[in-house]
Amino acid sequence: MNFMKIPTFNDIKIAHSRIKNSINHTPIMSSSYINSITNSKIYFKCENFQKIGAFKYRGATNSVLSLTDEEAFSGVATHSSGNHAQALALAALKRNIKAYIVMPNNAPSVKINAVKDYGAEIIFCEPTLAERESTLNRIVKETNAKFIHPFKHFEVIAGQGTVALEIFEEIDNLDLIVAPVGGGGLISGTTIATLHLSPRTKILAAEPEGADDAFRSFYGDKLVPSLTPDTICDGLLTSLGEINFQIIKKSVSEIFTANDFEIIEAMKIVWERMKIIIEPSSAVSLAIILKNKDYFKNQKIAIILSGGNVDLNKLPW
Amino acid sequence: MNFMKIPTFNDIKIAHSRIKNSINHTPIMSSSYINSITNSKIYFKCENFQKIGAFKYRGATNSVLSLTDEEAFSGVATHSSGNHAQALALAALKRNIKAYIVMPNNAPSVKINAVKDYGAEIIFCEPTLAERESTLNRIVKETNAKFIHPFKHFEVIAGQGTVALEIFEEIDNLDLIVAPVGGGGLISGTTIATLHLSPRTKILAAEPEGADDAFRSFYGDKLVPSLTPDTICDGLLTSLGEINFQIIKKSVSEIFTANDFEIIEAMKIVWERMKIIIEPSSAVSLAIILKNKDYFKNQKIAIILSGGNVDLNKLPW
Repeated sequence: MNFMKIPTFNDIKIAHSRIKNSINHTPIMSSSYINSITNSKIYFKCENFQKIGAFKYRGATNSVLSLTDEEAFSGVATHSSGNHAQALALAALKRNIKAYIVMPNNAPSVKINAVKDYGAEIIFCEPTLAERESTLNRIVKETNAKFIHPFKHFEVIAGQGTVALEIFEEIDNLDLIVAPVGGGGLISGTTIATLHLSPRTKILAAEPEGADDAFRSFYGDKLVPSLTPDTICDGLLTSLGEINFQIIKKSVSEIFTANDFEIIEAMKIVWERMKIIIEPSSAVSLAIILKNKDYFKNQKIAIILSGGNVDLNKLPW
Repeated sequence: MNFMKIPTFNDIKIAHSRIKNSINHTPIMSSSYINSITNSKIYFKCENFQKIGAFKYRGATNSVLSLTDEEAFSGVATHSSGNHAQALALAALKRNIKAYIVMPNNAPSVKINAVKDYGAEIIFCEPTLAERESTLNRIVKETNAKFIHPFKHFEVIAGQGTVALEIFEEIDNLDLIVAPVGGGGLISGTTIATLHLSPRTKILAAEPEGADDAFRSFYGDKLVPSLTPDTICDGLLTSLGEINFQIIKKSVSEIFTANDFEIIEAMKIVWERMKIIIEPSSAVSLAIILKNKDYFKNQKIAIILSGGNVDLNKLPW
């Protein structure tokens, strides 16, 4: 089962040299207002400014660029209706290879169009995990395309780890680093990079209450799925992956949760005070800080803002 | 009439060293999508990330910091319901002096509260220019505060010129530099800096059709006021100042206008593609480029994004 091979820090370093000319080196921003209300010093790593508007472009690009020409010839495939679909489609387009994206037939047209714009072939299926997986298996069989799993794939995890790598290149002596957790690709890469580059920095995960399977798995010490997720954080609905659970259960210090009301409030503070657009999934990290001020006060904290893809016609306030 | 003294480039340099530790050195961003649809290379100077969310903080800070201790003792005063009010209030707070802000009694409470939050004293008046001016004169007489005009004041113009100074520090060989024009403080400072630092760069102003007094003044060669402005660009409603007209009529190459529909469309493109929040007044510059693609194609262009203060509960789409 090749999903279970865990990247090392060296894989993240290799990923970074492989992708660094293809991605945006995103800025780190801060807000004196947010520092003042939290009594802390927060550095926001702005992956909302990444290509396709989310960190997912790092893992997808690393996966596509690590294929041999022979492997690349048959293209890549995945099932996703979110940022990973767009990321893989664009990464494939840049390498001039085919991308097959399995999407549920109830996906919003804005997401379908974004993937189509990058020239990917979309295969629709019924909106269940079983259907997605069986459709994907059929496509892979028919086309011989390489399946790039959104968060379990080795090169995806290594690619997502480059976010933390860039943070530690710029900021030292961090007390805490906080990333949201959905399937766990980002927090896994963050964990591997942080353990190597700054062992004293505590690694925290932030999760919406309405999809708290990582929280329950972590504290119950047993992987449990996200059965009926219900949260505004559309990037964090998926269940934590097995390999991702293996990585984080040893090395993440805590998982905190926040409810949608708290997440929306944090999201609005970032929009109003920092003048940047982040999606709800990105706001969970600030939400847990605002909710647990005593825990976070007087700390030097990095927050990974995971993405900025929101429908501007349907804002949650 | 001390309004009529025109700053030189040296005044802008002095302003920059005076304020540079008090302001945000704002980033310059670009968007491959926007470059592709305009067939140009656009550099966006992000003054929406400036303190108080607008470039106005530069001019206000320069004005406050240039006062002698004796002058500063009596505080500063202005009439404004917009970004200059907040800017002067915060600049005064940082120097620990009083700020008196004359505001129309129909100003939105969100703006009143923002100014109050910075500890300024607000004096309400009837919402006419005559009332604003007479109330301000009374306050200045009573308190001996120094009047800092929003766009005619010498140190304000010099301060706003530091935006272009920072642009040319980072980007060379610009074909065009574009700034919005309301009262004309920003375009005046931009003009002075550009003529000195990059004489080959054409200076363009962008103005909403619904408040096109600068356009009419410029092409009619006679200063005409903005009598019944009607535009979503709440930062560009004021009439062009006399000194500002003197500065720009010689050295600005063109003034282009766009209507509110075009401005809102440009604003939404920036939000969606660049993931940053800009106010309508900031979007006029991109709107005129999208509207006049032949004029702007194959050009290396700097756009000054003037600010990002919008009511997130009342978006124009």
